[in-house]
Amino acid sequence: VPLEKAQQEAEKYNLMLPLDLGARGSCTVGGNISTNAGGNMVIKYGMMRDSVLGLEAVLADGQIMTSMNQMLKNNSGYDLKQLFIGTEGTLGFITKAVLRLREKPKSTNTALLAIDSFDDVIKILKYIDKGLGGNLSAYEVMWKNFYEVITKTGSNHTPPLPGNHNYYVLIETSGADQEKDLDHFEKLLEMGLENKMIKDVIIAQSESDRKKLWAIRDDVEQHYQEGPVKMFDVSMPISEMENYVLEVNKRFSCIWDNYKCVVFGHVGDGNLHLIGGVGTDNVDEIHAMEECIYEPLKPISGAVSAEHGIGLEKKNYLHISRSETEINLMKSLKKALDPNSILNPGKVFD
Amino acid sequence: VPLEKAQQEAEKYNLMLPLDLGARGSCTVGGNISTNAGGNMVIKYGMMRDSVLGLEAVLADGQIMTSMNQMLKNNSGYDLKQLFIGTEGTLGFITKAVLRLREKPKSTNTALLAIDSFDDVIKILKYIDKGLGGNLSAYEVMWKNFYEVITKTGSNHTPPLPGNHNYYVLIETSGADQEKDLDHFEKLLEMGLENKMIKDVIIAQSESDRKKLWAIRDDVEQHYQEGPVKMFDVSMPISEMENYVLEVNKRFSCIWDNYKCVVFGHVGDGNLHLIGGVGTDNVDEIHAMEECIYEPLKPISGAVSAEHGIGLEKKNYLHISRSETEINLMKSLKKALDPNSILNPGKVFD
Repeated sequence: VPLEKAQQEAEKYNLMLPLDLGARGSCTVGGNISTNAGGNMVIKYGMMRDSVLGLEAVLADGQIMTSMNQMLKNNSGYDLKQLFIGTEGTLGFITKAVLRLREKPKSTNTALLAIDSFDDVIKILKYIDKGLGGNLSAYEVMWKNFYEVITKTGSNHTPPLPGNHNYYVLIETSGADQEKDLDHFEKLLEMGLENKMIKDVIIAQSESDRKKLWAIRDDVEQHYQEGPVKMFDVSMPISEMENYVLEVNKRFSCIWDNYKCVVFGHVGDGNLHLIGGVGTDNVDEIHAMEECIYEPLKPISGAVSAEHGIGLEKKNYLHISRSETEINLMKSLKKALDPNSILNPGKVFD
Repeated sequence: VPLEKAQQEAEKYNLMLPLDLGARGSCTVGGNISTNAGGNMVIKYGMMRDSVLGLEAVLADGQIMTSMNQMLKNNSGYDLKQLFIGTEGTLGFITKAVLRLREKPKSTNTALLAIDSFDDVIKILKYIDKGLGGNLSAYEVMWKNFYEVITKTGSNHTPPLPGNHNYYVLIETSGADQEKDLDHFEKLLEMGLENKMIKDVIIAQSESDRKKLWAIRDDVEQHYQEGPVKMFDVSMPISEMENYVLEVNKRFSCIWDNYKCVVFGHVGDGNLHLIGGVGTDNVDEIHAMEECIYEPLKPISGAVSAEHGIGLEKKNYLHISRSETEINLMKSLKKALDPNSILNPGKVFD
């Protein structure tokens, strides 16, 4: 079932499947579970793992393991579904699932902020998260070079805020009362403006405004227009992000005179996406680019994959985020559940 | 570390560890993780599993598996911590953990409702959950026989509402603005009164009021005063609860003329606690009581343990909630990770 179809089915009952991501039209719910997909609402609702109550999986020996739990609480023995969520089909093949739906929020408020220092990006996250008392549902940050390309003259988007700031933050809140929540949200943002942490702000006044703001954030493909690029998906403690991006740029600049390193991501979840381009898709150069992105994660305990999984492409970099003990334990699990390695062979590790 | 100490430490930074349960003073965080503890805020914040970002565990072969992830999103290979959460120490011994703290809500509102039909208990849950837009943090229900014993003359509690109703519901909300949230909560409750689903209501006007309401819900030990009793911890789809309780009572009444079957629980999570007493602690009679409680769970896909785990006591009933395939898969995991069965031996299954 495509994710979007599941979302629409929930909508019919005025409920919500709280997982949303750009590929909603083409990705499937089974794929979302097997990769533990993330996306735009993780800060409030968690990843796909948090929306799965039960599932059915086919094991390597052909047995069907049915574990279609419907309760929020069930500690009757091991929680076996965890084995199949996020393991990329290497321990079992998911054939059914019970999903946890939520009540659809009655209010949604969205704003785009311009901020100049990354310290303030962190401070505003903390301030807004606290001020909203649990109603912050997205905190998406675009670095200047992301925003400028997407909103440049001739693009599909009119810039809602001028392009001379260092960071653009898309904030979304969800709650119970549109009018009161908007009033509260506006007051929080006003205070951020007054104390100069927020340099500029625009609040969506309609659903159409809201869609236009998200369209800027979601228009990642604009960056694919000029020359070959590669998208990365890393995570790290938020406090490390600014230095990490500087370090990656430093490494790029030592190798290439001309390169692209566009940064954006789900900063509220510690998750950045980087779009790297070095003017070629030569295997060795791509490899060098990967090293520039992944190596600096090691000292800061970052992850080579936040929400896209390991698959084939990141197998060689798994050791950056995982110790030998951890990888060996993964292999023991694989061996116990799939001794002949017939399930999605060669994925995650060899 | 005792849970209460971890809670207090978080408080110092104006943050919150969103796990709370009656045994907070004596239970430990390690124990909470190894049993995947639940408690009073699961409907909003999830179980202990949802507050663990990373952990360190000692494996059966003496290796230390360090997986101290600090990010909300990390899909770099299998999420190994899941192996140790809720497996009751049978796959590894947890020695450290990274916990996810939350911003402390700025508002808390608490009310006790009297409701006469279980249909209305369900309708009000849905209505309040929807009306609060994600701010419902507790929906605790006491059946009449729970409430009456706790608030009877000579007890430690003054009944906040008269005792002639069938169900008493303790609702708690958390949000961002005390005044606005209270106003909104009051309006929701008024509408429930007007359409007669709620028969009576009292809203806590102070922290002291709030504590008094929770003290009634938490004073489970009152039920231990007269004769031997046993506490059960089951879960099921909420729509099955009323019939389940009737069925258990029917089975009790076929065996014993005098028995006690007091019911309360985290209805919002599908979790009921039953306090059963049949006037004796004779092993055979306790066994008969257990069968009365557990057998009716089978046709409704309920769980013999919602939040207390299996341990030794419920081993013989695990098959009620789990298929042979599931139990065999648990055993395969145990064999792979602890081939000599040296970790908490004999727990969960043989």
